[in-house]
Amino acid sequence: MLRLSSSQADFAERLKALLAFETAQDPAVDAAVAAICDDVKARGDAALVEYTNRFDRTDAASMAGLTLSRDELEAAYHRLSANVREALEAAAARVRRYHEKQLMQSWSYEDEDGTLLGQQVTALDRVGIYVPGGKAAYPSSVLMNALPAKVAGVGEIIMVVPTPGGERNDLVLAAAYVAGVDKVFTVGGAQAVAALAYGTESVPQVDKITGPGNAYVAAAKRRVFGVVGIDMVAGPSEILVICDGETDPDWIAMDLFSQAEHDEIAQAILLCPSADYIAQVEASIEKLLPSMPRRAIIEASLGNRGALIEVMDLAEACAIANYIAPEHLELSVAEPDTWLPGLKHAGAIFMGRFTSESLGDYCAGPNHVLPTSRTARFASPLGVYDFQKRTSLIRVSHAGAQKLGQIASVLAHGEGLTAHARAAELRLDK
Amino acid sequence: MLRLSSSQADFAERLKALLAFETAQDPAVDAAVAAICDDVKARGDAALVEYTNRFDRTDAASMAGLTLSRDELEAAYHRLSANVREALEAAAARVRRYHEKQLMQSWSYEDEDGTLLGQQVTALDRVGIYVPGGKAAYPSSVLMNALPAKVAGVGEIIMVVPTPGGERNDLVLAAAYVAGVDKVFTVGGAQAVAALAYGTESVPQVDKITGPGNAYVAAAKRRVFGVVGIDMVAGPSEILVICDGETDPDWIAMDLFSQAEHDEIAQAILLCPSADYIAQVEASIEKLLPSMPRRAIIEASLGNRGALIEVMDLAEACAIANYIAPEHLELSVAEPDTWLPGLKHAGAIFMGRFTSESLGDYCAGPNHVLPTSRTARFASPLGVYDFQKRTSLIRVSHAGAQKLGQIASVLAHGEGLTAHARAAELRLDK
Repeated sequence: MLRLSSSQADFAERLKALLAFETAQDPAVDAAVAAICDDVKARGDAALVEYTNRFDRTDAASMAGLTLSRDELEAAYHRLSANVREALEAAAARVRRYHEKQLMQSWSYEDEDGTLLGQQVTALDRVGIYVPGGKAAYPSSVLMNALPAKVAGVGEIIMVVPTPGGERNDLVLAAAYVAGVDKVFTVGGAQAVAALAYGTESVPQVDKITGPGNAYVAAAKRRVFGVVGIDMVAGPSEILVICDGETDPDWIAMDLFSQAEHDEIAQAILLCPSADYIAQVEASIEKLLPSMPRRAIIEASLGNRGALIEVMDLAEACAIANYIAPEHLELSVAEPDTWLPGLKHAGAIFMGRFTSESLGDYCAGPNHVLPTSRTARFASPLGVYDFQKRTSLIRVSHAGAQKLGQIASVLAHGEGLTAHARAAELRLDK
Repeated sequence: MLRLSSSQADFAERLKALLAFETAQDPAVDAAVAAICDDVKARGDAALVEYTNRFDRTDAASMAGLTLSRDELEAAYHRLSANVREALEAAAARVRRYHEKQLMQSWSYEDEDGTLLGQQVTALDRVGIYVPGGKAAYPSSVLMNALPAKVAGVGEIIMVVPTPGGERNDLVLAAAYVAGVDKVFTVGGAQAVAALAYGTESVPQVDKITGPGNAYVAAAKRRVFGVVGIDMVAGPSEILVICDGETDPDWIAMDLFSQAEHDEIAQAILLCPSADYIAQVEASIEKLLPSMPRRAIIEASLGNRGALIEVMDLAEACAIANYIAPEHLELSVAEPDTWLPGLKHAGAIFMGRFTSESLGDYCAGPNHVLPTSRTARFASPLGVYDFQKRTSLIRVSHAGAQKLGQIASVLAHGEGLTAHARAAELRLDK
């Protein structure tokens, strides 16, 4: 695992190289996705069934064989063992409670002239949630995508999840049941994204599509952006741990593992002012690694993109964290609140030694869909606000039209837009 | 101008055809933009100066010749006549006041176990505002893009505006002065977008780029999206007027003109239950058109994409408005408040006969950067919230770690993520 120190002369360049990640779009993928999207747009269900049978090795005769009702989601829920059902319900309740605080409210005010100005907040009518199939099918992602939409008051939530070889994941379907998903289609890939964006005979057209997927899904989302809304196209997952050297090193090693086990390009970085402590974490890594079922992935990830970085002090660690703008930031220090005001850029901050990232991933309450690849400089976690939108309200009074009309007239003439000026002037008293 | 009635058997298809607008991306533009962006990324100022001299017919020796300080903006401001300065200041004050209501605040709460959950709101560090040059240089757009960033508390606002042939627009520079823009570079096109996204020796790298531009600017913004944030890529401007037939028909005709005068692909549509009134508006259009300086553009726009539509009643008009999800919606009726609860999708609603769209464009207060092409189904006006972002906060207590650890462990094992489970389990009391 790479060892760096902020005192190295070339530290800034080495840090930049460590973080570099090219998300170049593949023209071959783009072309394949364009063809699939156009075909689904033109032929609807027929194309969707064909692509699904081909790519997912299913043998559906029609969309009826690729559609799950609420009853079937409920049946999957009841097939789970009681402790799993309870964990799912407990996580959902906490996520729901947190997200309810994010609800935006409409507001308005009248100015001195009786002119009303405001902002009306409404929920989206219908959204689509993409859930990856196979090994990366995560029930927690179903909760994290569907619950904010539900809390926002979205009218209908449509989920798509591919079932390669026809294999359904009860945990995923149960999560959809708990989260209040209205309908599930067992389709995936670019064809599923196109069906949601354009609508087919069976799949209703949605207003926004959220959720992670492979390169084809990402390319399809970029392609339909504008026809529908999309969430961010996510990069590899990342954790940055700032530790004062007083946390059990096994805990920190395992926190780094829990990021690294996602995939070979995930990134796990530790910042610490103590070289001794860094050595202890390294020893914990060596000790704990052999017992990990996903050892090969963890090793590749830590080897490719991980780093243990010695810093001068915690203040410098925070400055570096602001530059990195990590998806997950663990503040494993004695007084985490002290450092908070100086931390500007991160998707989520996990404060104090007890707050492992994995608690936030599943059940603390906040969303686990977070900005990656330094986009926390300008982007936010997925939230209720992604499923609500605003409409400006203006109701100008007679008196207001006199005052505003004068201003608008001057500025519109300044821009050479005479009709704009005249529309304002017509409302002026003669 | 096209006349339709909602009672026509094929009305739904005809409405769909009327609204259809393809924003296909041009592969030749994309290729040219890619080359320019890569060159500016690689060669910085040198490339930026070269492209600017070539495309904007300037002869700058270095970026010093393409840079304006706050002092130069102030000088432009003082060159304006007093009434224009006052109109600019009055508009800015109203826009500022409205946008201050949009400021998001941080919040947090502790649950029963003393676990803290919250959301920290911070402003972006630095943003770039693209302002088109030449004829489409609108000072009002400078206010509408820069003021929300300023209100949000953005640290530094960089504006780029091309000056074809070296010609500077005092009104635009004065607006930048009033809005609190920190620095202006007189560059434009894809090269300006690339400079803001990647940074050069002279142009500081920003975190987000907003503002309208031509096809090259739009393609460049799509390309750098992810490296920086961007606002929506805007389509042609649109107005939908719902009138009860009691407004002066000249007012409505002029409101339609004020949309149509933007360009030949702008869209202006009237919905009204009275065929007689529609005929009166048509007469006003014919009467007023010859006096319009931008008559040719208005005629082309109304001819290409305008429509006068007779509806059964105002309730049906509102249902059609929700389908259209227009950028601007004028409710030119006696009791606009009555209809508001049923209107879900619009960028901005202009309520009552005195509220011409042009008052909102310049000085009512709300932003004039609004979602176009039916994207109001899922998107919002530009606002302060586009220049703030959220970071989730989690501080799990010792007691909280016991409860949350059990839930996370069950769900992580269910997903086959052992390190996630172990990180939670390590925090459980022995």
